[in-house]
Amino acid sequence: MLDNILSQLDADRDAALERLFALLRIESISTDPAYKEDCKTAADWLVDDLNSIGFEASRRDTSGHPMVVAHSGGTGPHILFYGHYDVQPVDPIALWDRPPFDPALEETDNGTVIRARGASDDKGQLMTFIEACRAFYTIEGALPANITILLEGEEESGSPSLIPFLKENADELRADYALVCDTGMWSADTPAITTMLRGLVSEDFTIHAASRDLHSGMYGGPAINPNRVLVKLLAGLQDDEGRVTLPGFYDGVTPISNAIKDQWESLNFNVDDFLGEVGLSHPAGEKAYSALEQIWARPTCDINGIWGGYTGAGFKTVLPAEASAKVSFRLVGAQDHVKIQASLRDYLESGLPEDCTISYRAKEGAGATNMPVDAPYFTTARQALSDEWPNEAVFAGCGGSIPIVGHFQQYLGMNSMLIGFGLEDDQIHSPNEKYSLSSFQKGARSWARVLHALAR
Amino acid sequence: MLDNILSQLDADRDAALERLFALLRIESISTDPAYKEDCKTAADWLVDDLNSIGFEASRRDTSGHPMVVAHSGGTGPHILFYGHYDVQPVDPIALWDRPPFDPALEETDNGTVIRARGASDDKGQLMTFIEACRAFYTIEGALPANITILLEGEEESGSPSLIPFLKENADELRADYALVCDTGMWSADTPAITTMLRGLVSEDFTIHAASRDLHSGMYGGPAINPNRVLVKLLAGLQDDEGRVTLPGFYDGVTPISNAIKDQWESLNFNVDDFLGEVGLSHPAGEKAYSALEQIWARPTCDINGIWGGYTGAGFKTVLPAEASAKVSFRLVGAQDHVKIQASLRDYLESGLPEDCTISYRAKEGAGATNMPVDAPYFTTARQALSDEWPNEAVFAGCGGSIPIVGHFQQYLGMNSMLIGFGLEDDQIHSPNEKYSLSSFQKGARSWARVLHALAR
Repeated sequence: MLDNILSQLDADRDAALERLFALLRIESISTDPAYKEDCKTAADWLVDDLNSIGFEASRRDTSGHPMVVAHSGGTGPHILFYGHYDVQPVDPIALWDRPPFDPALEETDNGTVIRARGASDDKGQLMTFIEACRAFYTIEGALPANITILLEGEEESGSPSLIPFLKENADELRADYALVCDTGMWSADTPAITTMLRGLVSEDFTIHAASRDLHSGMYGGPAINPNRVLVKLLAGLQDDEGRVTLPGFYDGVTPISNAIKDQWESLNFNVDDFLGEVGLSHPAGEKAYSALEQIWARPTCDINGIWGGYTGAGFKTVLPAEASAKVSFRLVGAQDHVKIQASLRDYLESGLPEDCTISYRAKEGAGATNMPVDAPYFTTARQALSDEWPNEAVFAGCGGSIPIVGHFQQYLGMNSMLIGFGLEDDQIHSPNEKYSLSSFQKGARSWARVLHALAR
Repeated sequence: MLDNILSQLDADRDAALERLFALLRIESISTDPAYKEDCKTAADWLVDDLNSIGFEASRRDTSGHPMVVAHSGGTGPHILFYGHYDVQPVDPIALWDRPPFDPALEETDNGTVIRARGASDDKGQLMTFIEACRAFYTIEGALPANITILLEGEEESGSPSLIPFLKENADELRADYALVCDTGMWSADTPAITTMLRGLVSEDFTIHAASRDLHSGMYGGPAINPNRVLVKLLAGLQDDEGRVTLPGFYDGVTPISNAIKDQWESLNFNVDDFLGEVGLSHPAGEKAYSALEQIWARPTCDINGIWGGYTGAGFKTVLPAEASAKVSFRLVGAQDHVKIQASLRDYLESGLPEDCTISYRAKEGAGATNMPVDAPYFTTARQALSDEWPNEAVFAGCGGSIPIVGHFQQYLGMNSMLIGFGLEDDQIHSPNEKYSLSSFQKGARSWARVLHALAR
């Protein structure tokens, strides 16, 4: 039975590619109001396509760009699939080798690729899932599970309508778990399920001293310099071993299991290549951990921005009235972003000299997400992916965060399983975005296998 | 004889004021090319005036605004007087209570003032000297010494022509010593000779790490963050006592003499008022020194500017490719600015982690200037000033630098004596600049006394 589905996907390859190209031709840039109609066109295109393969689909207008919601009905596990049809802007257009909304196949040293804005992020990825559904519908006249599809049109522009929409339609959207198709493979031959996402808490603050900028000839010496206060405070946030010094910072950071550790070691992550690509050669983080552990499983403190005093051309012997910084922490395990923000503020305020005050520009934070990798559907999906690709699928970490996962947890009480077929060199958000043809075709076959396995 | 000169000054007060007003009406803003002709007009006005009182004066054109040079000839000590006829721009014009180039007397709580741009800086100050010369010429038909006058027209716009002019005309301009009239009194009743000027050495540098900005989700941990490197290096420049940690930094810093210390203590400098005016209340410099010593007689390390990473609105989880700072040191005594710059670079480079490089934007520096206060003309001038004012004249320090003093030393091998009658509240460089009428009238009498005493 699965064989029939896979054969159908292989037989239908050219038509599938033409469908993806049609979607890629729609200029659905969500952040630019000039493309508002194009976003609607993309939503309508998806509604029509989903209605043609056994879903009840509709365009759901919001105050921003519309959502697409589709239901298959039927029996089996209830699964919510999430993707987004909007794309990044194309600037700088001069750096594109071809028109970004005129998709084409291109031969490269790494095989055939689909070149277009959105090819990988996220139209190509979401169509792998839809093509798998289409094959089931064609062969069996029905889908193998009770599938709800949610496609967003504002993922690249801050998702302003998402949380209200999730809240208002929670009963309709809630499922046993979600499948999110916005991540990548470990390598071209090794599929991955992303099971750990680091959290993030950030602080944006200013240290205030004198009531105005002072001249260092007149005041240098007795007048306190907030630049000096700032660098001292920031320098004290980490010790020489790279550990964060805030009290309680490591509460909730648990070591990764040996099983995961073994799996990660087997990935042969090449730190020299990883750093070499950006002109570095020495891992600079916590000395006791490998670079991959540092990115996936260890928290960080990052000074993202500092500014104070005169920063223009030439020189000005000024003692500024204020100095500012943007600092963020990547979080793992059960680290509590609220407590860490409070600990940071305690640290800053207790270290503030007389005559200085501090003000904050408030930021939201979020803890790390750890997927329930021991749940049966993770094991099942991992096996199904391994059946399709040369190498066994891995449970990977991710140094960044994918907000939708937290939103599903918070507003729908639902876990997510992150599966995607993007590759490191897809150049998403950059000129000449591509999606490997094998990602598209074997991605669709992978979803067929995963859906088949999950439905049993 | 001196009495006759002083009486002549008193009798000629109204005419002297009218002369100053005529000069103040000329809009000699040197930094704005629109006022080029006005600068020439001011120079010509001064040439004519000096030729009328026994000088041989001429306008000396440069590639910028002209110099005015005048010689009295005659016997006695050879003295070079320096002032400048150009003024600061008047923006923001809306903050002026009257037209800046329409001078007028105004009654204030602190007495009568002359309100106009340039009233204090430096037209009023230079006319005090010229009025004193005029009185000698009127009464005695000659000046009491061999006086050369050099009036610059580019002091407020970086003095681009000054050093070439000094070099080309060194033989003509060299004198026994210079009198520079661009400083202030200690208070309205206490005249001052400024005898110490701090030097300055600055460094403007960038720390480079990765070849491009990185995303902290992807690289946070193993990739080195130049913001962190920068704050650690800058934080280490001073210890908790406020002392600069650079090796050799304090070489050449000598304690001030007990005589000077006693004099300064007698000034009853009010640190609470000084800091309170700019919203501060705690002296923040080296704990072992009074605030006045810190400003006049102690070196500093000032972080004038820092910048790195994202500094705009909102937040960006970036690990920047580079981070920069502008740092300067105020110098005293015999501190060697070349050695200190080298020591700073050694410190920065030896503290630089692997994968980081540093680049510099070169800056010139200059050591502190210490006048020969034991020379007889200092003692003589101090006594002459004390004879005019309610309180005894003081030898004061100055936290900043006055470049002309260094130039006279370097290019003409000549010391300077800094005497001026400006007051703290003259609002030079700001709207509503003023010069107290007593500064102008008693200033001219002071110069008469000083010239008389120096000539004996």
